[in-house]
Amino acid sequence: MTTPVLDPAALTPTQARLRFRGGLAVPTAGWSAGYAQANLVAVPREIAYDLLLFAQRNPKPCPVLDVLDPGAVSGPILDGDVRTDLPRYRVFVDGELVDEPTDVTAWWREDLVSLLVGCSFTFEHALLEAGVPVRHVEQAVNVPMYRTSRRCRSAGAVSGPLVVSMRPVPAAQVADAVRITSRYPAVHGAPVHVGDPGLLGIADLARPDYGDAVRLEPGDVPVFWACGVTPQAAVVESRPSLAITHAPGHMLVTDARDSAYLVP
Amino acid sequence: MTTPVLDPAALTPTQARLRFRGGLAVPTAGWSAGYAQANLVAVPREIAYDLLLFAQRNPKPCPVLDVLDPGAVSGPILDGDVRTDLPRYRVFVDGELVDEPTDVTAWWREDLVSLLVGCSFTFEHALLEAGVPVRHVEQAVNVPMYRTSRRCRSAGAVSGPLVVSMRPVPAAQVADAVRITSRYPAVHGAPVHVGDPGLLGIADLARPDYGDAVRLEPGDVPVFWACGVTPQAAVVESRPSLAITHAPGHMLVTDARDSAYLVP
Repeated sequence: MTTPVLDPAALTPTQARLRFRGGLAVPTAGWSAGYAQANLVAVPREIAYDLLLFAQRNPKPCPVLDVLDPGAVSGPILDGDVRTDLPRYRVFVDGELVDEPTDVTAWWREDLVSLLVGCSFTFEHALLEAGVPVRHVEQAVNVPMYRTSRRCRSAGAVSGPLVVSMRPVPAAQVADAVRITSRYPAVHGAPVHVGDPGLLGIADLARPDYGDAVRLEPGDVPVFWACGVTPQAAVVESRPSLAITHAPGHMLVTDARDSAYLVP
Repeated sequence: MTTPVLDPAALTPTQARLRFRGGLAVPTAGWSAGYAQANLVAVPREIAYDLLLFAQRNPKPCPVLDVLDPGAVSGPILDGDVRTDLPRYRVFVDGELVDEPTDVTAWWREDLVSLLVGCSFTFEHALLEAGVPVRHVEQAVNVPMYRTSRRCRSAGAVSGPLVVSMRPVPAAQVADAVRITSRYPAVHGAPVHVGDPGLLGIADLARPDYGDAVRLEPGDVPVFWACGVTPQAAVVESRPSLAITHAPGHMLVTDARDSAYLVP
């Protein structure tokens, strides 16, 4: 008897979330093909306005897919439990990282408001279908993410740097990557930068601030997309009493279809 | 010596706003061609979160172009003064309409947060350029707006009906109108309904809830777009201590270009 091979892409969102609820803690790139993935930032109601306004003012890194009511753990695009259904979380107390659990039930509070923010993993299926390679999936590592020298527009107590994800793209396919991803504005859309990382204040591509380094193949150009870790970085800078986020790359798999965020 | 004829379409946003600041109180359809117009809803900071979340949850009627800081009267898309630069306002105290002045300086408070919400006047230039007639401009009346039987998704204390604007479109050009306006998602985008007003709970097109009735020409079909009066109607239902809005059809002419809201 052979053990069935897990094909993460073929799992429904519910099946994927049940595995994560069971403790599986892996990056979610490539999981549940055709379904949107989301960044999580949960903060006390008292700073939720500043965070929501920050997102509104910085729509490229912070495209809001949904906001749950205070204390709510599910919603229209999540028929599950936001406290248990992500592979891994980060917990910040007064802006300090204190825990990276696979379940945040013990940390939950009734005043927490969860923002679900679009994730660029959503458009990776479209890139692959168009023949544009996704190196971090090929290399089975987490996508590399970098804090840049660009500041976001601030909102009340919330301010921070633009965080970007990077995908190496063959030079001849950069235009395809731009064209395809620009059709998904709700999940970061077109790249914010193509080429020289130094212009974004990134000193060394081999040392990402989040996720893993990815190898560029000969002829690849580094292409940078705004990243949903941006609101996480900004919230942490504002040092709220409690903030709960996904661990970078370990996203919420939602019940919303990728196609719901595709513009005509 | 002849009096120079005013061509509202040719005025810059600053020129237009100066006229309104001077007391001119007319609907703004057709003014400052190429520049985006905005709905105004200013509410006390304490309910701004619910209003911003309401907008996020109902992006078709409430596409947020910008949110000013508490007490602020200008911002990135308004090099002017939100208290004086609209042709006419509405002032609501505890949800009751108490004043319709052309200047709200006397009503202003330092805790007021101004939401600037996209307006469908923005895409009317694109319709005209494509040869799609805009009947209310032809007939020199305000656009007709209707409260529908559809409810918006609520957010905290803020809930209300979907409000729509209606433009009669020749049957052969309805497809053009859909195609053109769908390229402007930040200013209401594609129509929410084409045809029978009864299906939206509108009993009589000749009696709009806001604005003026407009005459359908033979062969015209009524086409309905989500309207930025929606957040105004919802805020009023929530009965805040104070709310200041534009008078329907009497919009803020912003410094943002229409083209900034055009998707590729």
